[in-house]
Amino acid sequence: MRKLSSIQKAYLAGFLDGDGSIYVRLKPNPTYKFGFQVAPYVIFFQSAKDEKNFQKLCSILGLGYMRKRNDGILEYTIGRAEAIAEFLSLVKPYVILKKKQIDLMQKIMCMKSLVKNKKDFEALMKLIDSFRELNYSKKRIKRTLTP
Amino acid sequence: MRKLSSIQKAYLAGFLDGDGSIYVRLKPNPTYKFGFQVAPYVIFFQSAKDEKNFQKLCSILGLGYMRKRNDGILEYTIGRAEAIAEFLSLVKPYVILKKKQIDLMQKIMCMKSLVKNKKDFEALMKLIDSFRELNYSKKRIKRTLTP
Repeated sequence: MRKLSSIQKAYLAGFLDGDGSIYVRLKPNPTYKFGFQVAPYVIFFQSAKDEKNFQKLCSILGLGYMRKRNDGILEYTIGRAEAIAEFLSLVKPYVILKKKQIDLMQKIMCMKSLVKNKKDFEALMKLIDSFRELNYSKKRIKRTLTP
Repeated sequence: MRKLSSIQKAYLAGFLDGDGSIYVRLKPNPTYKFGFQVAPYVIFFQSAKDEKNFQKLCSILGLGYMRKRNDGILEYTIGRAEAIAEFLSLVKPYVILKKKQIDLMQKIMCMKSLVKNKKDFEALMKLIDSFRELNYSKKRIKRTLTP
């Protein structure tokens, strides 16, 4: 990633507040120790008609990858933990609306790296579930840990 | 409006690119000379759950007004021509995705102030229609001028 000016960081903070999504998916996956993969994301969405400029914007970052969905929407995804950590620490001082989501994501990523047993993992899952309240989803999911 | 720093302007440019909408409505209105009111808008949308922070953000601007829609979405609308002109000139240097919309809006507002006859107004309507292409609406509307 290039070094960003405070102007660029403030722009990205505004863009994240307006258009971005911060969340963590718990993907059922039997090859993982507790039966779930913890997958954090920062995603931006944009109409494919804006592709050129959106790519320009994303290239400022260089932390994620672009894909075009079947419905024509472009998604720019930051999925690597280090990339997310770097991005969030850059924009956090300038963010106004999504401060809570950033705090929660940083907490989750920190706790994830410290998980030692099932109890730790359950506490982590609980934290991840609290994203639903911040992001206004009404779905509640019951999960069973393995083994 | 308060004086804004370049950091604040860059943030607002990012927010506009992510979440904002720039458009002009032609409202049928028989009390207007050519049968239509030309109504320009810059609008931001946000979930009502973010109300406090969204209000903080909008109060930086102080150029528009907030309303809560029936579906719970907050809308911050900048509708006065001078307020739109001021806002757009502030953020334009920092905008990446919506440069064309800003150019078009500035052109429309300039031409609107110069309308003298039906031909001028028809040219203005044509310009306004080109917003549809920028904003990806598929609707095409046929209008009849009065008188």
